[in-house]
Amino acid sequence: MANPTAYDRLIDRFARIATINECASMLGWDAAAMMPSGGGAARGDQMAVLAGLAHAELTDRRTGDDLAEAEAVGEWQTANLTLMRHAYVRATALPADLVEAQARANSSCEKVWREARKASDFAQVRPYLEEVIRLTQQEAAALAPALGLSPYDALMDGNQRGVGAADVTPVFAAYEGFLATALPAAEERQARQPEPIRPQGPFSIVAQEALCRRLSERLGLDFTHARLDRSAHPFSGGTATDVRITTRYVESDFTQAVLAVVHETGHALYERGLPSDHARQPVGEAAGMAVHESQSLIVEMQACRSDAFLSWLGPELLATFGGDAEPYRPENLGRLWRRVERSFIRVEADEMTYPAHVILRFRLEQALMSGDLRAADLPGAWNEGMKALLGIVPPDDAQGCLQDIHWYDGAFGYFPSYTLGAMAAAQLMMAARRAVPDIDAALGRGDLSPLLGWLRVNVHAIGSRLGFNDLLRAATGKPLDPADFQAHLTARYLG
Amino acid sequence: MANPTAYDRLIDRFARIATINECASMLGWDAAAMMPSGGGAARGDQMAVLAGLAHAELTDRRTGDDLAEAEAVGEWQTANLTLMRHAYVRATALPADLVEAQARANSSCEKVWREARKASDFAQVRPYLEEVIRLTQQEAAALAPALGLSPYDALMDGNQRGVGAADVTPVFAAYEGFLATALPAAEERQARQPEPIRPQGPFSIVAQEALCRRLSERLGLDFTHARLDRSAHPFSGGTATDVRITTRYVESDFTQAVLAVVHETGHALYERGLPSDHARQPVGEAAGMAVHESQSLIVEMQACRSDAFLSWLGPELLATFGGDAEPYRPENLGRLWRRVERSFIRVEADEMTYPAHVILRFRLEQALMSGDLRAADLPGAWNEGMKALLGIVPPDDAQGCLQDIHWYDGAFGYFPSYTLGAMAAAQLMMAARRAVPDIDAALGRGDLSPLLGWLRVNVHAIGSRLGFNDLLRAATGKPLDPADFQAHLTARYLG
Repeated sequence: MANPTAYDRLIDRFARIATINECASMLGWDAAAMMPSGGGAARGDQMAVLAGLAHAELTDRRTGDDLAEAEAVGEWQTANLTLMRHAYVRATALPADLVEAQARANSSCEKVWREARKASDFAQVRPYLEEVIRLTQQEAAALAPALGLSPYDALMDGNQRGVGAADVTPVFAAYEGFLATALPAAEERQARQPEPIRPQGPFSIVAQEALCRRLSERLGLDFTHARLDRSAHPFSGGTATDVRITTRYVESDFTQAVLAVVHETGHALYERGLPSDHARQPVGEAAGMAVHESQSLIVEMQACRSDAFLSWLGPELLATFGGDAEPYRPENLGRLWRRVERSFIRVEADEMTYPAHVILRFRLEQALMSGDLRAADLPGAWNEGMKALLGIVPPDDAQGCLQDIHWYDGAFGYFPSYTLGAMAAAQLMMAARRAVPDIDAALGRGDLSPLLGWLRVNVHAIGSRLGFNDLLRAATGKPLDPADFQAHLTARYLG
Repeated sequence: MANPTAYDRLIDRFARIATINECASMLGWDAAAMMPSGGGAARGDQMAVLAGLAHAELTDRRTGDDLAEAEAVGEWQTANLTLMRHAYVRATALPADLVEAQARANSSCEKVWREARKASDFAQVRPYLEEVIRLTQQEAAALAPALGLSPYDALMDGNQRGVGAADVTPVFAAYEGFLATALPAAEERQARQPEPIRPQGPFSIVAQEALCRRLSERLGLDFTHARLDRSAHPFSGGTATDVRITTRYVESDFTQAVLAVVHETGHALYERGLPSDHARQPVGEAAGMAVHESQSLIVEMQACRSDAFLSWLGPELLATFGGDAEPYRPENLGRLWRRVERSFIRVEADEMTYPAHVILRFRLEQALMSGDLRAADLPGAWNEGMKALLGIVPPDDAQGCLQDIHWYDGAFGYFPSYTLGAMAAAQLMMAARRAVPDIDAALGRGDLSPLLGWLRVNVHAIGSRLGFNDLLRAATGKPLDPADFQAHLTARYLG
């Protein structure tokens, strides 16, 4: 064989890094879904060693030499090399002692946060959060010049490359305006409808689990390359050829399990559809957190909560659980699973008010990072923001600024991804419906395949060759346009 | 902190290597117990990358420099440094291209062997086995001078350090002599006893699994540090603080599942009892394959198949499965689970004839390695050996020289560990009974703790500080002495 080129060497190196990360991903799944509690300490060490090995491969002097020398041919290689350089810049911009200090501070803060949330006692965690913020500011300051971005955008870039505050601010402002009239109108319409009837349990967990698996398969997940298990919080993990999704079950209600599984199935289908020709290369990876969320939400919110799909799902649920047929009528399921409500907790929010929770966090975290908002003033600022956005004030900090793990674990710049994903999902669904006429007819038969076929080509197979807005432009003819999400909400909640 | 010494640096390096190996161990468990088939290819890459990383850490030039410079203080450090040097010598003695060629050849041969065994067609796998043997001979030839051992002993050393053919040959010869009279006598005695009654199923697999878990806990396994799952072949894996045992279930018979679980529980208890002060250091590891097998067999064969334990287990089984009480009477379980039989398949053999299967393999693999036996002549030599040792001739090679994966996967020098372990288990049990008078009374209450307490101190807590015979000497007053195993068999089968 001829001498490998610099690009060839990089291919090998990034494949090795990706393979190490696959090990970490599998062990992360195991920790959440399988591991006995006594394995926790050793697992922490295992994850740290794997992270260290991957980091060492990436920041090796030879990576830099090869990146300087490498030449790419064609669109895929060019995108891959750009992504390799981007990863290298991000990894080498941070001093090792900062990375270590962050790992320690985030881990300590997160532990204290669990207690503080239970006690609804912000003061308890405040000094830890201050340290996390201080170190995250240092991280942002180190990344910013290396990436040629503002400090906050450098953090956002770590979650959805190429999308910054300037992209998001006007989109969120427009949504705030929409919500101000749409939410009262939706509430008024909802008040005129019959109250939804809740299916009465208990629902055997064995039956729920079998249903969830059947549903996930029906949506297109191939269980020779996937597993469905249980964990405290539903997630999708594993690797592209071996995805692991989880959910949780309660006997009194199957809703949570079923909707979590269709959501995680959306994530899993995306991983399964990534371009296998570019497996283990940066260009073959998912295009970022917002795109990932668009794929879970297009399956959960756009497809599976549609009238068409509910008309198929209702009889399936009735056949599974038996009992009174009324709650399983599609119109009732629609009223039950598509209900707007001003509420305190983001993860329980409906799709119309959810963005308000994100907008609040987006504004607060920018202020925390810039220093305009002190951690000590966070609870007050939170409550004011909730008042302004949704007109409600949390009764305590557990239902306010202590509810989410993210900041207390050092994740800043992540929250916008949820709403960017929701908006992208609506925009992609609209484009798919234009391109493939029988999507809804198929959903009415419980068949996702026409939609999935379109997503495979227009989203999944793209990998990371295109960034967020370029991907949307290629798939839908325009960059992110919140009008499509608003049109979706208008049709569903005000139509 | 003062500058780290060479020994300090080695501690860190070997801890890192052990942590990488923990990742591999967990992923190995996952592959056997959890992974969907589609994950197999990626998993192979993951395991290869982890093996490569661990090997690179071990063979790094700096490891050699530090090993040359390091000084140890006290018994544990001295043993640890000796084991580090030993590991380094083994790893650096082999050229990288040989290691790679072996990985490829073993993997190819193992795949063909699966087909050949199904078809009982030795000719099909013969050329692959020849290549495996050729490369294993090269491995042995490379290891031998580095370790100062004969080539075959260099292979044995990889499974049970410090034990060679010269230790094993007289022990096996003595056993062969014992067997020549003991086996016919045991058969004759058995023929005079009533036929054992098999419990009649079906036995719900859910009930079997719950029983197995309860039994394993009863024997002392703490499930905050362990899991019990299912796999095609029972095994014990994971790590010292997170052991993973598996078994398999069939509805028609619970015997296999229950006995496999008590066996694997023995392995798991050993891992759990290793000295945590020396975790992730060579001296803190299990003392070798023969010692490991002694710990599974002392629990399964010595303790759980004893009259005392069966008198507790019988009523437990009856309470679990119900039905006719007769089969669960302890005397019947004894006749059922302690039956000698001349049979073809090693893994199904009883404890008296099992060593004959090992002796055959021990002799044949030495001849294969030395070149005295050609692969082409293996089937004939196998059948002659079976005739000489057990007086039976396999009807085909699937029940003869094709039955075990070991050689076809490149494992030579491993088989003796099984019988060394069985003999050590008997010797340890005898010493434990002398030291702790109430072992059998406790077993009669389903209580392993007096025996386990003694094993904790005399075997588990030793880690690898002592080699096989030194460990036995410290625990029992003598090196391996097959007389104790023969006395055990005489009492159980001829008494």
